[in-house]
Amino acid sequence: MIFKSKKRISVGIIGGAGYGGSELLRILLFHPKVQLLFVTSRQHAGKKVASVNRFLTGVTDLVFTEPDIDGIPQDTDLVFFATPHGVSMTMMKALVNRVPKARVVDLSGDFRLKNANVYRQYYGKEHGAAELLERFFYGLPEFCRDSVKNAQYVANPGCFATGIIFALYPLFLADAVGRAVHVVSVTGSSGSGESPKAVTHHPYRAKNFKSYKILEHQHLPEIQQFFRSQFPGRDTEIGIVPQSGPFVRGIYTTSSVYGVSASSDDVRAAFESSYENERFVRIVDESPEVTTVCGTNHVEVAFVCKNDWIVSMSAIDNLVRGASGQAVQNMNLMFGFDEDEGLLFPGMRP
Amino acid sequence: MIFKSKKRISVGIIGGAGYGGSELLRILLFHPKVQLLFVTSRQHAGKKVASVNRFLTGVTDLVFTEPDIDGIPQDTDLVFFATPHGVSMTMMKALVNRVPKARVVDLSGDFRLKNANVYRQYYGKEHGAAELLERFFYGLPEFCRDSVKNAQYVANPGCFATGIIFALYPLFLADAVGRAVHVVSVTGSSGSGESPKAVTHHPYRAKNFKSYKILEHQHLPEIQQFFRSQFPGRDTEIGIVPQSGPFVRGIYTTSSVYGVSASSDDVRAAFESSYENERFVRIVDESPEVTTVCGTNHVEVAFVCKNDWIVSMSAIDNLVRGASGQAVQNMNLMFGFDEDEGLLFPGMRP
Amino acid sequence: MIFKSKKRISVGIIGGAGYGGSELLRILLFHPKVQLLFVTSRQHAGKKVASVNRFLTGVTDLVFTEPDIDGIPQDTDLVFFATPHGVSMTMMKALVNRVPKARVVDLSGDFRLKNANVYRQYYGKEHGAAELLERFFYGLPEFCRDSVKNAQYVANPGCFATGIIFALYPLFLADAVGRAVHVVSVTGSSGSGESPKAVTHHPYRAKNFKSYKILEHQHLPEIQQFFRSQFPGRDTEIGIVPQSGPFVRGIYTTSSVYGVSASSDDVRAAFESSYENERFVRIVDESPEVTTVCGTNHVEVAFVCKNDWIVSMSAIDNLVRGASGQAVQNMNLMFGFDEDEGLLFPGMRP
Amino acid sequence: MIFKSKKRISVGIIGGAGYGGSELLRILLFHPKVQLLFVTSRQHAGKKVASVNRFLTGVTDLVFTEPDIDGIPQDTDLVFFATPHGVSMTMMKALVNRVPKARVVDLSGDFRLKNANVYRQYYGKEHGAAELLERFFYGLPEFCRDSVKNAQYVANPGCFATGIIFALYPLFLADAVGRAVHVVSVTGSSGSGESPKAVTHHPYRAKNFKSYKILEHQHLPEIQQFFRSQFPGRDTEIGIVPQSGPFVRGIYTTSSVYGVSASSDDVRAAFESSYENERFVRIVDESPEVTTVCGTNHVEVAFVCKNDWIVSMSAIDNLVRGASGQAVQNMNLMFGFDEDEGLLFPGMRP
Repeated sequence: MIFKSKKRISVGIIGGAGYGGSELLRILLFHPKVQLLFVTSRQHAGKKVASVNRFLTGVTDLVFTEPDIDGIPQDTDLVFFATPHGVSMTMMKALVNRVPKARVVDLSGDFRLKNANVYRQYYGKEHGAAELLERFFYGLPEFCRDSVKNAQYVANPGCFATGIIFALYPLFLADAVGRAVHVVSVTGSSGSGESPKAVTHHPYRAKNFKSYKILEHQHLPEIQQFFRSQFPGRDTEIGIVPQSGPFVRGIYTTSSVYGVSASSDDVRAAFESSYENERFVRIVDESPEVTTVCGTNHVEVAFVCKNDWIVSMSAIDNLVRGASGQAVQNMNLMFGFDEDEGLLFPGMRP
Repeated sequence: MIFKSKKRISVGIIGGAGYGGSELLRILLFHPKVQLLFVTSRQHAGKKVASVNRFLTGVTDLVFTEPDIDGIPQDTDLVFFATPHGVSMTMMKALVNRVPKARVVDLSGDFRLKNANVYRQYYGKEHGAAELLERFFYGLPEFCRDSVKNAQYVANPGCFATGIIFALYPLFLADAVGRAVHVVSVTGSSGSGESPKAVTHHPYRAKNFKSYKILEHQHLPEIQQFFRSQFPGRDTEIGIVPQSGPFVRGIYTTSSVYGVSASSDDVRAAFESSYENERFVRIVDESPEVTTVCGTNHVEVAFVCKNDWIVSMSAIDNLVRGASGQAVQNMNLMFGFDEDEGLLFPGMRP
Repeated sequence: MIFKSKKRISVGIIGGAGYGGSELLRILLFHPKVQLLFVTSRQHAGKKVASVNRFLTGVTDLVFTEPDIDGIPQDTDLVFFATPHGVSMTMMKALVNRVPKARVVDLSGDFRLKNANVYRQYYGKEHGAAELLERFFYGLPEFCRDSVKNAQYVANPGCFATGIIFALYPLFLADAVGRAVHVVSVTGSSGSGESPKAVTHHPYRAKNFKSYKILEHQHLPEIQQFFRSQFPGRDTEIGIVPQSGPFVRGIYTTSSVYGVSASSDDVRAAFESSYENERFVRIVDESPEVTTVCGTNHVEVAFVCKNDWIVSMSAIDNLVRGASGQAVQNMNLMFGFDEDEGLLFPGMRP
Repeated sequence: MIFKSKKRISVGIIGGAGYGGSELLRILLFHPKVQLLFVTSRQHAGKKVASVNRFLTGVTDLVFTEPDIDGIPQDTDLVFFATPHGVSMTMMKALVNRVPKARVVDLSGDFRLKNANVYRQYYGKEHGAAELLERFFYGLPEFCRDSVKNAQYVANPGCFATGIIFALYPLFLADAVGRAVHVVSVTGSSGSGESPKAVTHHPYRAKNFKSYKILEHQHLPEIQQFFRSQFPGRDTEIGIVPQSGPFVRGIYTTSSVYGVSASSDDVRAAFESSYENERFVRIVDESPEVTTVCGTNHVEVAFVCKNDWIVSMSAIDNLVRGASGQAVQNMNLMFGFDEDEGLLFPGMRP
């Protein structure tokens, strides 16, 4: 692997002023194998990164630049897209031409789905670079590590999708899903991004709890695509109720199935074979907790089997494991670094 | 009805210093048909009610008394029990002897289950007054109004049970439950009562989300008993995942079923026939909200049907509709008052 | 008083869709002496009030109308302005012409200051109706009840101003302010109104604490004007640090003075003579609390004297006592109703 | 300095299961110059550290031990006390005898005050090791770096004291304090420790704001002692109103003075000379923010001068800069490490 000999790879971030970009900065600026070359922001171009992200004062002197593909240094090794949905697909062809050898990790939803029709159905517009869809690999490291290692272009999974797949994978593995899996997944307010909106207005959100995009969230098709790819031939329906809760960070997922033939031992065995050697995954008793994974790349999972019910749960930090942390984990794999390089910050209590 | 001619009925509260008791006080002290005779509290006996519930300063001069059954005035028309689980069953026989004509509404779980064995299984101890179980009626006004009117003893439903039954009733009515209904129900911290405990420690709870008593919450059997009584012959399993969220008041319930034969129109018709004439129930679009019912006796419900999925949701205030408000609603029915007497406070925004 | 014989007065609200308007609706729709004629909202004209304020479903069938002065019914007895700063001054002359006998309570800052130059300095624009300033009376009921009774036009005090005046008044009365009073006052997020903005974005606000408009908040001059009017000749400077805290409702004010000659007994006597007969004011031990006044028109105050320090504190609900509740209290006085008519809702615990 | 040549020093924590201990673990387990030898906890002795601090799973295999001075390894280089007030003074003499060459950093209040009488007055009990008081140095690194470097025993400042001293120091330096400084300082709930109590009960705390220990908090005498030592001859009174706010981490301090002779330029110069070369201190415009320092060892300060008022503010994380981070910063100085070694984690947004 050529990169192993390099002291630091050269990395850029397109769309670095939002919450995903802030998390990328927090991780990459301390990553021992990364040299951060550029960070773009249309809104803040010309301003110091630390003036927008005051918590990075003293850590970096970088200045936000305009997102200008033609100005990307040709020795760039990797570009992260932390742009809103619909942006990276307008820039990707130019990027591929400009730096054909660079790797890409796209944190947005633009290149997760293989099928441009499904994209249109869930994202409400035509895909602007459908011919590139096949070149992107859906990078969930724990489940397809080897493919990530060999990928040039990685689509980073959605936050809900990550939490839900971690909860459901062992059930699929144990053939414990039956006809339909019932999923409820609640997210903190940072999942709505950094622009103020009605649903994140503090007086409204601070004591509220509600559902939205019931059974039609845009992360559903990437979850379906993932499980169809991993467990071909299974014909399990997945019903997802996304919810918004009055906390800032975290996604908590609850899934349940009833009346499948798998035993409690089968389920336990599937959880253990899926996760017991994973440094970022903790199988816990009773329930995962959002605070315990907050600020970290870790995933907590738990399950309960009783009578004919199986309940499987997960908790992640939506901005770290559900976005930037996982993106860096993918980067580590793509460049042959230790998978947890730069990602071992443990969180806090309380 | 003899009571209609009375200007005010004479009412007492046993266990009036907790959150349930506070809510009863808030409602009853403004109820035009109620004269509050006594409020007991072991812990605060001798103190002014307003010194414990500072928000009631100027509203009442009542003083907490020791819970002394023998001292209960013989002309008491109704006694509310707002005691922790396991207390009212030790006092009920004495109460029935002391004031045999008085009505009782018990907000605790002691007299909800008809079967003392099920009580033991879920509450972990022997029932101390099993012979009285049959005399209590499970009072969920919207679904069994006439029986409540004629009941002398009412067991007030649990908070989770109330929220869950409101979400599920129309599905049962539409025969849209199939073999199993999947329920997730999240409660605010006030559901844990007024004694500080680890799970309600602010540094722990303020940003957390977790599940507990998965598939084995003590409100499950009263829900089962209710639906078996209302829809005999149905053989539907109900799986409940209780969760605790970082808000103070409210219970939000999500239920889902898959692959039942009921159509979207069937479900809509069932919701409408269940609730459209109910003054306390709002059928809303998209999702109920916790803040909109906070501080009120109202229930919000919503449903979504898509492909073969049916999702049904409800939101209540756990201390009002899930406890004291519903208790007063039962009282209103038992004494022939307008059902919403004293209960029409609308909440606040925000 | 002519109005005493009327069963209900006819009232309208201009700007009824914001948080102040919502609170007015919550109070007036249950007020036994009020008939609500109209509620305007530019943004929501044509929509049912209950569709914007879902918590008012079943309480009112009113529909928001366009703010059209010419369409105001001529028998209107009172108009509330719950508009943003700068709006009522553009409409007031037309209103006075249209309904010259109607009373007005303006919740905005437009008519609080007597001096149009000071208005310009603090609000950053010319006053559009300076000739009407003298006709408005600054209505803080507890301190100038008789004048409010005789006022046709009342400027309702600002939320910070109300909290601060309640904390400082007894100190002024006891001549315990000296050269300078140090004030810190923290508000919940609802004080920023119902439009989402950066400072009320939940991910930003939920765990934050900060100061803003330090020593230059626009409520400062109305506080100065009030104390100069009530205690002429005093030459005390008031320094105010406004802060924003991570809660929704409430303003907590802390003030301190050092080295004045007043004794602890003087201060106590001043608090008692100011408040002990006030039904809406509670003198409490140790500290006021925001939750105890939340949702109510009550004010909690406390003070501590130690060595040469005097600390005086208050807590109010910014939307009730700091806006709509106090506006209705003024209305009650203006029409000879009981001062607490429609305002005796006690709040909740927790 | 002998320690510079050592790869890692040997460190132990007494009282490692509380919030202060958790933060010490989070920092020390990643500190490149520290080998953590032992962590004690009466309550959790025998349990894995990671079972109590789930967020440390995979980071350490340490097991909590009983606090047994006689069992402390003789080659221990440093012992941290993260015990509740009143504990370390009962163990210190034995510790000094057991490991006479070891250094000590005590995070509790036991050895901060030089005067045992003042200790008794503020802590309500006799000091158990008054003869050791003189051997402890009050370690606030930015203001007395050289003394810390030479200290064997360091008393780590209190959380309120740290926040308040950072806000006031430049005012003292500029001789801008006059007769009296007015201080209000609000803390998050984690300041109350990890044991549930009434004041941290979530239903009570989540929306509340109040003051406590007004003018008599036990951190007052250490602040007075500090400024008398740093600025001998000054005779300035400091009045402190401690407050509790509805957030978890952070202390926000507001101080104000009126009518002193210092100019705005004097104040600015004093802030700059105090902090502009400090890597952990940021002078910000308008206001510090709690979220920006949350999880970090950084301090934000700001000041506003207007007319004759000076307002000075600071924000810290009470558990990091107000406790464990500062303790490690002291350790770094005591052993000649880089002062920011292991402390450069930047926080998060949001």
